[in-house]
Amino acid sequence: MAKQEDDFKRVISHAKEYGYVFQSSEIYDGLSAVYDYGQNGAELKKNIREYWWKAMVQLNDNIVGLDAAIFMHPLTWKASGHIDAFNDPLIDNKDSKKRYRADVLVEDYVAKIDAKIEKEVNKAAKRFGEAFDKETFLKTNQRVVDYQEQGKTILSRLGKSLQNEDLADVKALIEELDIACPMSGSKNWTDVKQFNLMFGTKLGANAESAMDLFLRPETAQGIFVNFLNVQKSGRMKLPFGIAQTGKAFRNEIVARQFIFRMREFEQMEMQFFIQPGTQKEWYEIWKEKRMKWHLSLGLGKDNYRFHDHEKLAHYADAASDIEFRFPFGFKELEGIHSRTDFDLSSHEKFSGKKLQYFDHEVNKNYVPYVLETSIGLDRMFLAVFSNSLREEQLENDTTRTVLKLPAVLAPVKAAILPLLKKDGLPEVAHSIVNDLKWDFNVTYDEKDAVGRRYRRQDANGTPFCITVDHQTLEDQTVTIRHRDSMEQERVAISALNGIIHDAVDMKTWLKKIE
Amino acid sequence: MAKQEDDFKRVISHAKEYGYVFQSSEIYDGLSAVYDYGQNGAELKKNIREYWWKAMVQLNDNIVGLDAAIFMHPLTWKASGHIDAFNDPLIDNKDSKKRYRADVLVEDYVAKIDAKIEKEVNKAAKRFGEAFDKETFLKTNQRVVDYQEQGKTILSRLGKSLQNEDLADVKALIEELDIACPMSGSKNWTDVKQFNLMFGTKLGANAESAMDLFLRPETAQGIFVNFLNVQKSGRMKLPFGIAQTGKAFRNEIVARQFIFRMREFEQMEMQFFIQPGTQKEWYEIWKEKRMKWHLSLGLGKDNYRFHDHEKLAHYADAASDIEFRFPFGFKELEGIHSRTDFDLSSHEKFSGKKLQYFDHEVNKNYVPYVLETSIGLDRMFLAVFSNSLREEQLENDTTRTVLKLPAVLAPVKAAILPLLKKDGLPEVAHSIVNDLKWDFNVTYDEKDAVGRRYRRQDANGTPFCITVDHQTLEDQTVTIRHRDSMEQERVAISALNGIIHDAVDMKTWLKKIE
Repeated sequence: MAKQEDDFKRVISHAKEYGYVFQSSEIYDGLSAVYDYGQNGAELKKNIREYWWKAMVQLNDNIVGLDAAIFMHPLTWKASGHIDAFNDPLIDNKDSKKRYRADVLVEDYVAKIDAKIEKEVNKAAKRFGEAFDKETFLKTNQRVVDYQEQGKTILSRLGKSLQNEDLADVKALIEELDIACPMSGSKNWTDVKQFNLMFGTKLGANAESAMDLFLRPETAQGIFVNFLNVQKSGRMKLPFGIAQTGKAFRNEIVARQFIFRMREFEQMEMQFFIQPGTQKEWYEIWKEKRMKWHLSLGLGKDNYRFHDHEKLAHYADAASDIEFRFPFGFKELEGIHSRTDFDLSSHEKFSGKKLQYFDHEVNKNYVPYVLETSIGLDRMFLAVFSNSLREEQLENDTTRTVLKLPAVLAPVKAAILPLLKKDGLPEVAHSIVNDLKWDFNVTYDEKDAVGRRYRRQDANGTPFCITVDHQTLEDQTVTIRHRDSMEQERVAISALNGIIHDAVDMKTWLKKIE
Repeated sequence: MAKQEDDFKRVISHAKEYGYVFQSSEIYDGLSAVYDYGQNGAELKKNIREYWWKAMVQLNDNIVGLDAAIFMHPLTWKASGHIDAFNDPLIDNKDSKKRYRADVLVEDYVAKIDAKIEKEVNKAAKRFGEAFDKETFLKTNQRVVDYQEQGKTILSRLGKSLQNEDLADVKALIEELDIACPMSGSKNWTDVKQFNLMFGTKLGANAESAMDLFLRPETAQGIFVNFLNVQKSGRMKLPFGIAQTGKAFRNEIVARQFIFRMREFEQMEMQFFIQPGTQKEWYEIWKEKRMKWHLSLGLGKDNYRFHDHEKLAHYADAASDIEFRFPFGFKELEGIHSRTDFDLSSHEKFSGKKLQYFDHEVNKNYVPYVLETSIGLDRMFLAVFSNSLREEQLENDTTRTVLKLPAVLAPVKAAILPLLKKDGLPEVAHSIVNDLKWDFNVTYDEKDAVGRRYRRQDANGTPFCITVDHQTLEDQTVTIRHRDSMEQERVAISALNGIIHDAVDMKTWLKKIE
């Protein structure tokens, strides 16, 4: 746990030091759970977005893009269920005046039970040495069995109460468990109340006609309300998909874990419209396709797993998460949901407009079913960034910090370094920059000894360092150093474009998906 | 005027019909002054954004990107002056309950005077025929001279009253001019009041600690508050720039002209940090650089002009607009502003943090001056789209609608068309799609006669149509048809990638700027 926390802290501080992620409005002491992407972060985020867009839109003839506004007509959120059901159960402590998510208080209580189990396991493992079998121990040690049973009972009751909207029982549970305010230790709680997570605002200046708007809590609805516009103007035939990237906003009470859960975040969503009855088939297809996309980046197969939902949201008949091993454990990175005709039918009802498709093959009208893939761009950023950050032990007993980003996503593809700031070397280096910049994001760096510059570019995630030395003046060759292997080779200046291109070209990387 | 309006209506309906721009939440009867970009619009917008980003960030070693959040600490807007001064003067009619921008009521009154002048000019032109000299007429016809004088006097008084925040005088002016409510004809007005254009919302669920936030009305401030973060982590040396694209929001009272003035819009801004005293020089450099960027797209030199501001905003010591000939006349497309040290100094004051740069060359600390280039992405979209839409008279006495988008920006680069839906032609066409899709956004179309498909792709803005016919099966050649010239040539399938690449590659287009 302590190591995990240390690793995560290192991720956050590295992100700041190298211009990837800054706290928002830092000079004003920040804005909670909001972050800005710096000069490198903006490029990494852009490259991830583009890698997704190409895979989804450019490579699929039956998927097109969309860019709907953040502002939508408020009835949208009535139809989607967000006005009525997009709530968190909150509880206030009367003494400390602090507010908490009631379900998180209970979950934290269970986490403490889990920690006790872990402790017993570790103790026993130490005592029994090699003879220790964890699975048997978990099933036979009475104390541990009791702990497990207790945790399961609590979570099951919490789940049931929330599903039945029995908030009084959630409060009763907190009191029975004797949970105290983490800040003050007080057990003097208010009732549990539902709090809607949408940000509200007002459109128009006229007090009488001002309209209550919401900042969209998901991008999906922009796709649903435009379903017919796109289908008709694009002459699309089922099955087809509409893909979109864009900002969404949630007034999270417990927003934490850096950019994993932010109040303002970006989604990359695709809604795939299909014939009713074919959803199981498409669900499996998209689970596999999306996993292949992730694996193409080479972050390690073991860092991903599927988590199929047992409890389903009101709109879904099947749902699975692709989870990733973040610095704080396996967590949801992407969701694949079979949404049925819930959304389109609901918009039909609330708008009074038909949202149907005439299927020539079966000669009838119907409301299509929808298969959704939804990934958080910021989470994807965190997955790529945290997985790439390494401390490496080198042969000469020193260490290096290296950000082993997939080359296709790296913000800067190559740094051009004159060995010395004289003898015409900077001029040659600049001319290489001016040649390569048309195809790649490259940078020039002449400060400090070249070894230090290598380290700096390692930490920055730059896949290639190109060094101009005196030999360059004679034979038009340079050394090119590879970030990951630290190997250097001598190549002709004229070969640089091809070498970098082969390593960073999106097409090459995307071909791994097929 | 009528022709202009017709042209503009055609632009709007074409944008909808071909999946470029839809009214937001159309199934709910829309949301005023908010629009969604359809399948083609999303690609065109993305391509414009990328064309700007490459020109600004990738090609300039001393300009880096940023992606700051829409939510910022509220003090940001105190420092920037938006809380105190980002207002529109509003007036209500007591009978109709309609609200208006007081300045717009007066400006509309002056527009009517201008229309009278226009009418006199036309009458005289008709009467005098070829002998008519407009300039002399404007200077000598007493009625017209009086009209001009009247208009000038009104606008000058309005300008002075607004500058002095003398809202009582704005109301007096409306009453003196006897301006009536356009809806009801009533002259029963309230006082003029200032209305802030920022959208507000609340962060956090705790009533006590909830924070009043604003949706950013411009992206620029995200750059200023991050100035030191970027400068330090990126080891940037003056002069250097930070570029950013992103959404901004303004609660416009009079939002009109389609996507020209929206309540939610996207900006592409670059702030260039310079040594104080060098601003005049950089102002001229950036005016020229930005104009070259626009001209590189080939929309016609005559469609652009500079408009240097005489009255300057409180933060500027020089400002110029690049105006474009929109369907409704010349209007601002981009602004180049010399912002001095206003923003950074103001953030220093309100945050209590130093925002200075240590200049090794002169060995001292100072607050840099700023040169800004700011362009509306949606306006740029409208400029490109409206300029490209043409009705062409063809030789055979028919007409065609063609969207002559610059090929580099076109959403779909090529359509692959099998001449017939049999004899294996669709299979060959699909294999061409599967080959080209790795490099370009392409589409397959087999419906209707090939001539009709050509027209459809013309209207869609697709630069190339590639037709697979029976000869293709024999010799692996296809016809490629050029959208603008309608010329067709027979080429080998293997040559397609190169032909399309040469026409659409961003690098080729960007080289025109240098």
